[in-house]
Amino acid sequence: MSRSSQEIRLAERPQGRPSGRTWELATVDVPEPGAGEFIVQIEQISLDPAMRGWLNDVRSYVPPVGIGEVMRAYAGGRVIASNHADFAVGDAVRGLFGVREYAVSDGKGVDRLDLDVAPMATWLGALGMPGMTAYFGLTDVGRAQPGETVLVSAAAGAVGSVVAQLAKAKGCRVIGVAGGPDKVAWLRDLGLDDVIDRKEGDLLRQVRRAAPDGVDVYFDNVGGELLDAALANLARGARIAICGAISTYNDETLAEGPRRYMALLVFRASMQGFLVTDYLDRYPEGIEAISQLIGQRRLVATETVLEGGVAAFPDALLGLFDGVNTGKLLLKT
Amino acid sequence: MSRSSQEIRLAERPQGRPSGRTWELATVDVPEPGAGEFIVQIEQISLDPAMRGWLNDVRSYVPPVGIGEVMRAYAGGRVIASNHADFAVGDAVRGLFGVREYAVSDGKGVDRLDLDVAPMATWLGALGMPGMTAYFGLTDVGRAQPGETVLVSAAAGAVGSVVAQLAKAKGCRVIGVAGGPDKVAWLRDLGLDDVIDRKEGDLLRQVRRAAPDGVDVYFDNVGGELLDAALANLARGARIAICGAISTYNDETLAEGPRRYMALLVFRASMQGFLVTDYLDRYPEGIEAISQLIGQRRLVATETVLEGGVAAFPDALLGLFDGVNTGKLLLKT
Repeated sequence: MSRSSQEIRLAERPQGRPSGRTWELATVDVPEPGAGEFIVQIEQISLDPAMRGWLNDVRSYVPPVGIGEVMRAYAGGRVIASNHADFAVGDAVRGLFGVREYAVSDGKGVDRLDLDVAPMATWLGALGMPGMTAYFGLTDVGRAQPGETVLVSAAAGAVGSVVAQLAKAKGCRVIGVAGGPDKVAWLRDLGLDDVIDRKEGDLLRQVRRAAPDGVDVYFDNVGGELLDAALANLARGARIAICGAISTYNDETLAEGPRRYMALLVFRASMQGFLVTDYLDRYPEGIEAISQLIGQRRLVATETVLEGGVAAFPDALLGLFDGVNTGKLLLKT
Repeated sequence: MSRSSQEIRLAERPQGRPSGRTWELATVDVPEPGAGEFIVQIEQISLDPAMRGWLNDVRSYVPPVGIGEVMRAYAGGRVIASNHADFAVGDAVRGLFGVREYAVSDGKGVDRLDLDVAPMATWLGALGMPGMTAYFGLTDVGRAQPGETVLVSAAAGAVGSVVAQLAKAKGCRVIGVAGGPDKVAWLRDLGLDDVIDRKEGDLLRQVRRAAPDGVDVYFDNVGGELLDAALANLARGARIAICGAISTYNDETLAEGPRRYMALLVFRASMQGFLVTDYLDRYPEGIEAISQLIGQRRLVATETVLEGGVAAFPDALLGLFDGVNTGKLLLKT
């Protein structure tokens, strides 16, 4: 049976914000699976801030997506044909399948998903890469302890919303930062101790007001002005976990650095970068911890699912940078 | 017997580089020591980059020097009169005595010095605060391991020269950065593996050339462009010990931050600030380690001693920022 598959390819490296010229929509025939291969029909594509970094031709933790290549993306789907011993037709799976409707896989880096534990969207969110980022960033890098004050940026996002709830579950005082009254209200409903609306400006003073005794752990997803506001308001011995800097990813030139980094000395604090993929062998621990909290209704896994299929990917990605999502942003194929 | 003592007071907080108006030279009578007190005749005054920070009226790890107060300074001298059980006339001592000729002390924070182990200048340098800064910054914050590549800035300075030699003694590959051919030659003579002359510019490329496999530990005394150059050239899992940022201390506005701080994420690296005073109770360990290396002639304690007495302090301090010194900079009273 012959199938065709739409896919999004990188046509041109963007300077700054991706545009229509960045992408190319193509349709290809899906081959039959070879020996040891299977075919996945993709149902949901994960939209992640890291994607913007993958478009830049610079030395980084992974090679950039090549011009003409299918855009790299985490995705979830179902096996619809298989010559692989470990993957059967009907299996729900996730992996780095790319922005397309069907993927051929040899199983490397692919996980089978137990949809009795959680729906596929959650396996791409709170139980997926973003949830693991939250878990290991907060516990291993931030080393948050009960009673400490945790500040988390992009707190209504895929990673931030899990960080905030994990920190609450740990017994921390949690301050979230998000953009706009809807997200602020949503985070208050989640039980955060305080929420800062970054769109109200003067972040330095807002953080000081919310954390008069200083911030013990700052989980940074955004960089920019908020990182400086956090640095200015650290507690002694504070830890900053550098997870991302989404506020700068579409800048055309290298953004300014954190002017107040010498606060690290004043407060004997540290700032540490991390990559969730370094914790791959410990994912079971993170999944266990988060799924338990979900089961106890102490953590709400939230997703925003966009319609429109693969062709809608360029706009969906921009939506991520514009903050259209609450929780994990996904695109349905 | 009545004695008079010259002292330097803070007259006005400097904007940017200290000037003639920053300081006031005064002469006061030295009182007789009260009960539990002693009088120190100061012989050598320590000039430290941290002094510049003490002049700013901002929240920091210590309160600023007050207007009209004697300038805070580490110094060494001899007890010339004593009503204190633990300090006898003739004892060599060091402490935060201030920029003056005679100090009254109750002994708090004062150490007696064994001049058979090392001369007073060394007790203010390699065996003093700068040496302890080097020791704990390299071992505890930088966690340098044999075989690793250590980059140290201001490598010909009081702290940097000890860091570089400690790292060599540990079996690290050591790259020093200093300003000008004389210091570069001096550092090569000390046995460093490579030396960068920061005055030759293009620090990013110079660091890349000297550390093609990346920097494991960067001991940062200077901040500025060199910090960015180090960030761009880290090895995976690198540690940056933030000890100071002398290149920015006389800036009139908050200097730019390290633009390349997201390298911390790419390289899974950390940047940690520290203050040597947090290690006070472990000074014996640091003194033991460094004095042993001095005894084995594996570490050279170097000092630059300026003449001119207390009145020469304003110029001596500027000399520190202009890099007149090799090793520890001291002012003789």
